[in-house]
Amino acid sequence: MNIKLLVVGKTLKGFINEGVEEYVKRLKHYTNFSIEVITDVKNPSALSKQQLQKQEAILIEKHIGKDDFVIILDENGKEYKSIEFANMLQQKMNLSLKSLVFVVGGAYGFSQEIKTKYSNKISLSKMTFSHQMVRLFFVEQLYREFTILNNEPYHNE
Amino acid sequence: MNIKLLVVGKTLKGFINEGVEEYVKRLKHYTNFSIEVITDVKNPSALSKQQLQKQEAILIEKHIGKDDFVIILDENGKEYKSIEFANMLQQKMNLSLKSLVFVVGGAYGFSQEIKTKYSNKISLSKMTFSHQMVRLFFVEQLYREFTILNNEPYHNE
Repeated sequence: MNIKLLVVGKTLKGFINEGVEEYVKRLKHYTNFSIEVITDVKNPSALSKQQLQKQEAILIEKHIGKDDFVIILDENGKEYKSIEFANMLQQKMNLSLKSLVFVVGGAYGFSQEIKTKYSNKISLSKMTFSHQMVRLFFVEQLYREFTILNNEPYHNE
Repeated sequence: MNIKLLVVGKTLKGFINEGVEEYVKRLKHYTNFSIEVITDVKNPSALSKQQLQKQEAILIEKHIGKDDFVIILDENGKEYKSIEFANMLQQKMNLSLKSLVFVVGGAYGFSQEIKTKYSNKISLSKMTFSHQMVRLFFVEQLYREFTILNNEPYHNE
């Protein structure tokens, strides 16, 4: 199963890039994982929050294929414990899904259309973190889940 | 009000240090914030999980003063939305507390004694993150709360 993290906008902070790269490298031992970056909408400050979300939604849809099982990272999503999230990943692998795609929205989150269309939602925290920092949280968590599934000594309960 | 983050063990990863430093620097505009590092217990691999937690607990207690209001970061703690966490901080400031201390445990979390003694607990996420990564999550979140309390354009709801 391929796993992809689809994000809006380049990662601007060096320390986030560095951390993300470390976990992406580690993830290669377990799965075919990649990060796909959707180029930022041009001149975003000229747009309202809703206009920006709509333009981002069009770009997001262009990056989603018909075989992709999509899960969006949304503040109203389901919260998982790490072990539950690992089990969910295992279930998806058991279903022989070709491609599992996690999507992180832009600075203002997703448009209502995206939220309505994609009913599979997870939330990493009740707290709001920057949409860039979420990338780092997510890859560390995904790496953790694979060490759990492989009974490797990274995760301490 | 002084705010302190008390952590067990040096931050080993460069990217985490870099990120933490950025938010510590930003926090200086709002509050007297510091991070205090408790030196790791020597030869931890020779100890059981419980022995390590107990030794860390002794060190943690040495770093807590009688005027400190202590909140531990624990997986069974209360989960807050960012705005709720900001309001909680404001309430503490309104009480004219001298010092608010957040404590992150070691790799295996806190001893039962620490969990029993300190009833104020917060959880950043249902998911488990590394005890080093939690530092970065926490400082970004604390910075976010101060921008919320000051009506500054960092936090997007």
